[in-house]
Amino acid sequence: MSKPEVTELPVLQDGDAVPCCPPITAGELSQADAEKMAAMFKALSDPVCLRLFSKIASHPGGEACVCDIADVGVSQPTVSHHLKKPREAGLLNSERRGTWVYHQVAPSVVAAMATMLDLRA
Amino acid sequence: MSKPEVTELPVLQDGDAVPCCPPITAGELSQADAEKMAAMFKALSDPVCLRLFSKIASHPGGEACVCDIADVGVSQPTVSHHLKKPREAGLLNSERRGTWVYHQVAPSVVAAMATMLDLRA
Repeated sequence: MSKPEVTELPVLQDGDAVPCCPPITAGELSQADAEKMAAMFKALSDPVCLRLFSKIASHPGGEACVCDIADVGVSQPTVSHHLKKPREAGLLNSERRGTWVYHQVAPSVVAAMATMLDLRA
Repeated sequence: MSKPEVTELPVLQDGDAVPCCPPITAGELSQADAEKMAAMFKALSDPVCLRLFSKIASHPGGEACVCDIADVGVSQPTVSHHLKKPREAGLLNSERRGTWVYHQVAPSVVAAMATMLDLRA
C-alpha cells in the first residue's frame, strides 16, 4: 500500500483567492497585479507540475487524490512537492479527507488566468 | 537620444509557432505538450516581463518598439533581456525596422494558452 501523505496543508477555498487580473490588452499591469500573475504562471512553468495539473483538471469531478494521479513516473512525495507551487499560487484547492489529500483546480483563479490572456477582451 | 538595439534577432512569424495544447480538462497532457506549455508559462513568470508584455499587448496596434515601452524603470538593455524569453517561447514576434526592433504579441500562441486554461472546454 502506498504511504499516505502526512504533511499538514492549508485548506484553501476557491473564494479565498481574489481573481486577478485585467486582460493584458487593457493596459499596463500594475506592479502588484504583475507580481500576482507572475506567481501563477511560475506555478505552471514545470512540465511535471503541468501534467499533474492536467490530470487533476481532467479527473472526474475536477478533483483528484494523490493516489489517483501518481502514475506519472515520479514518487508520491515528488507529486506532492510539484503540487506545492500551484497550491500556494491559489490554482489548486487542497483538502484532507481521512488519509488522503484531495486536490481540485480552483475554477475562478484558472479562469482569471485565461481572461488575462484573452486578446479579444 | 536612446541607444538603439544592435542585437541580431530571429524574425518569428506568428504562423511559425504551432499553437499548443489541448485544454487541461481534456485529459493528461503529453510530455511534449507539457514541455511546450511549461516554457510558455515560464516566459511570463517574471513580473517585469509580464508588465512589458502587457504594455506591448495594449499598445495601439498590439505592437511596440522598445522605445515605446522602456518607461518601466529599467534600462533598455534590461527591457530587451526581459523580452528574450517570451520571444523564444513564441509569444512575441519581433522584427527589426531600421534602428528599432518592434515586438508584437503572437495572437495564436497567446490564444492557445488561454484555450488551454479554459475550464469550459
